[in-house]
Amino acid sequence: MRATLIHGDHDVRLEEVPQPELVGSGDAIVRVVAACVCGSDLWGYRGVVDTPRPKRIGHEFVGIVEQVAPDVTAVAVGDFVIAPFYHCDMDCVNCRNGVSTSCLHGGWWGSDDRDGHLADGAQGEFVRVPNANGTLVATPSQPSPEQIPGLLTLADVMGTGHHAAVSAGVTSGSTVVVVGDGAVGLCGVIAAKRLGASRIVIMSRNEQRTALARSFGATDVVTERGEDGAKAVRALFDGVGADSVLECVGTTEAMEQAIRSARPGGMVGYVGVPHLNPELAVRPLFNNNIGVRGGVAPVRNYIDELLPEVLSGAIEPGRVFDLELPLADVAEAYAAMDERRATKVLLRP
Amino acid sequence: MRATLIHGDHDVRLEEVPQPELVGSGDAIVRVVAACVCGSDLWGYRGVVDTPRPKRIGHEFVGIVEQVAPDVTAVAVGDFVIAPFYHCDMDCVNCRNGVSTSCLHGGWWGSDDRDGHLADGAQGEFVRVPNANGTLVATPSQPSPEQIPGLLTLADVMGTGHHAAVSAGVTSGSTVVVVGDGAVGLCGVIAAKRLGASRIVIMSRNEQRTALARSFGATDVVTERGEDGAKAVRALFDGVGADSVLECVGTTEAMEQAIRSARPGGMVGYVGVPHLNPELAVRPLFNNNIGVRGGVAPVRNYIDELLPEVLSGAIEPGRVFDLELPLADVAEAYAAMDERRATKVLLRP
Repeated sequence: MRATLIHGDHDVRLEEVPQPELVGSGDAIVRVVAACVCGSDLWGYRGVVDTPRPKRIGHEFVGIVEQVAPDVTAVAVGDFVIAPFYHCDMDCVNCRNGVSTSCLHGGWWGSDDRDGHLADGAQGEFVRVPNANGTLVATPSQPSPEQIPGLLTLADVMGTGHHAAVSAGVTSGSTVVVVGDGAVGLCGVIAAKRLGASRIVIMSRNEQRTALARSFGATDVVTERGEDGAKAVRALFDGVGADSVLECVGTTEAMEQAIRSARPGGMVGYVGVPHLNPELAVRPLFNNNIGVRGGVAPVRNYIDELLPEVLSGAIEPGRVFDLELPLADVAEAYAAMDERRATKVLLRP
Repeated sequence: MRATLIHGDHDVRLEEVPQPELVGSGDAIVRVVAACVCGSDLWGYRGVVDTPRPKRIGHEFVGIVEQVAPDVTAVAVGDFVIAPFYHCDMDCVNCRNGVSTSCLHGGWWGSDDRDGHLADGAQGEFVRVPNANGTLVATPSQPSPEQIPGLLTLADVMGTGHHAAVSAGVTSGSTVVVVGDGAVGLCGVIAAKRLGASRIVIMSRNEQRTALARSFGATDVVTERGEDGAKAVRALFDGVGADSVLECVGTTEAMEQAIRSARPGGMVGYVGVPHLNPELAVRPLFNNNIGVRGGVAPVRNYIDELLPEVLSGAIEPGRVFDLELPLADVAEAYAAMDERRATKVLLRP
């Protein structure tokens, strides 16, 4: 089969690789129907994170179950399934606590699984799925082609935006700021809206993304950044800032922007993957009672809640995809996201 | 009148100072009935924080209203009142949001008020109270002498322990760890218990404090510290850690202990005043979805909720005082706390 490997800085290639096979008794093999490129994939692509040797890449996919090992009962051959950006058993204490990204028996696509076998990457034709009973969620029936982009967002960006909003404590009547106008930030707007936010500010300078954010429920746009941006936010909210701020970028600057935009007693929900090894100054948080919560989003725990709304069209996170390419053009997909010509690229094998 | 001044390292003195007078139209003058020494007062005493020139000290007191300015309507001459460790109007947006420590018109005892006049320190005979309508809470009737220590804890430590528990998200059934066995940590045990925690671990090596913590509701004691302490905590809680951890010390070590003791998805509520300028590494928080919330506790916002339980004896935070001295012995009060001969010293002018 064909799968994507990252070789290094600005170098991803679709290559012939061995077909995955069932290894563990809880495995499934899924034929990928749609995958995509994540903002965090760009770190290796941009050389921010080193790639010492070529490796499989990708971690968001939906597809059709092709084979199941004997212990797999939750899904069956032929099911259309959504996979979160990691695998998990949904049975250990962390999964039951709602934090399946900390599954005691889970792992990450594109890396060696606990059994020493590759758990594949998702930007390819097939994926071996360990912990298939916990990991995969089957849709009630085969989705229409129009539903697929939305379902694919449940693998990562919609669940991650939702996690930012939940972590930031968004509830009925909350005032919200979203830092980041990428796919996760846009999904954060959707999440804040469905959780009942009364007002949602998107911090963006991009007209196309701003328009999409407004259609998702954003009520205000702040184009300024840094202290000017925080001032503009405070001016919107009683001079003090917003109840909840969603940090959806992962840079130190974005985190500082988020903290500055929260009111005393407010909460920052952060899901942008922090690169390098950032530190937070405690004093500004302590003095203003601003909380910080979030992390690698346990999107598997959110699929049950969000799936019906995606299927019904009540929420339309699939609209964050603004480019669709065949898997053969994966290099162009990366380039388009790297150069910000696209917000989020959907790939079809 | 007499009031306490800190002159520098291990040097506090009771001295004759001018009697405070009404300055603003919202002022009251309160005769101090009981005050106390705070762990944070020890920073200046220990020379951790510099004292470039002698200054008034103290910020916890209860007393009797002696005089009120024309705009004061919430309390009357003769009322027994509790003052939080700061003054606030309880009317601005931050006070209404529950964060009166960020009052837009508030300030701190022992420092110059906004009008340029000293707002006194509380370890003295009288205090000028700005924003008296918002700041002071009168008890329904004159308390008995036995009730006074408990009422005094509402000025700081009980409300601060409560803030740690609220910030850590303690709710019915929560598993809780309390880092710190000082007065705030012990009040944190009380707070966790009354919020419904199912299990409360106190991290302490002090038998007297451990016994008090147990009588307040602690179910387990962990004497180890560092990684050994975190291991002992994890062993108590499914191998993963506690839902909520209360950090009641303020050192970098205590904060690290707290973060290590929380389960994935857990929450650290921190109220220990961070000295120096600590930073938090983001990665351990992000990877495990551990949240951090807290800060300078808005105890004024909690008095209404906690006061009836103190008056009824349903909670007994006054038991954290293990030494009572006349104000004239304030230097000995500091020494006893500095040398850990006392947990918390009550002073009577």
